[in-house]
Amino acid sequence: MAASTMNQFMHQALELAQLAADHDDVPVGCVIVKDGVVIASGENRREIDNDPTAHAEVVALRHAAAALGHWRLDGCTVIVTLEPCVMCAGAIVNARVDAVVIGASDEKAGAVGSRYNVLQDPRLLHEVAVTWDVESAASVELLQQFFAVRR
Amino acid sequence: MAASTMNQFMHQALELAQLAADHDDVPVGCVIVKDGVVIASGENRREIDNDPTAHAEVVALRHAAAALGHWRLDGCTVIVTLEPCVMCAGAIVNARVDAVVIGASDEKAGAVGSRYNVLQDPRLLHEVAVTWDVESAASVELLQQFFAVRR
Repeated sequence: MAASTMNQFMHQALELAQLAADHDDVPVGCVIVKDGVVIASGENRREIDNDPTAHAEVVALRHAAAALGHWRLDGCTVIVTLEPCVMCAGAIVNARVDAVVIGASDEKAGAVGSRYNVLQDPRLLHEVAVTWDVESAASVELLQQFFAVRR
Repeated sequence: MAASTMNQFMHQALELAQLAADHDDVPVGCVIVKDGVVIASGENRREIDNDPTAHAEVVALRHAAAALGHWRLDGCTVIVTLEPCVMCAGAIVNARVDAVVIGASDEKAGAVGSRYNVLQDPRLLHEVAVTWDVESAASVELLQQFFAVRR
């Protein structure tokens, strides 16, 4: 995927992160692309849905599988504003996603290099290509604004 | 939780694992207990639901949060027939579950000691008490029967 295309999809994910903040969820957004087209998206909905699994990536993965009619998301790329946590990285592996494009890193809970490296572990069933640091400043700014108001 | 009580709840989880096999999903079942009562349950529904996130534990966690009206599952114990994968172990941490009771280990993909130890990592946000090897032979037998027919 060309860098300019990644930036364009990341801007869509950042809009979803803002949507999450608008309903008082930590601002993280995600879009899933196949053959150059967005087939699914999601934002963090943990608080609004009272659902501990409703991180942006899991929401988007479930939508993508529903759209494709299968749990295997071969050929798909996940574009997400924040480094996935353990749950979300595991879900990305389970869905056999081809590639992940990440905005900002999450040093406390990230599972794509910060705490674990679940997406590139040859012992697991599937490995995922990773691109880092796409529009990370915009993602960090959204997160800092969100927590600044609430602390 | 007394050993006899754990066994009783694990039998319920094993019945759900059999239900999963009945709809051609890998037989894994899960119940979630709070104050001595089953508040939610689930079986693996990946194939029947075309959902890469629909492992028994994620299904049950979502039902438990819906039942309690909050994503935090304080005071809850997850009883599951097979060692949770990375996604499910991450979801259990995210839901702030108190304890997990496991049937059989999963040496290939387990994240509670086999590949990772996500539930007892002091670097993450939350640690979970773990009890191993409750009715593990019955869980292994269900899995072996399932794969024997399909290989």
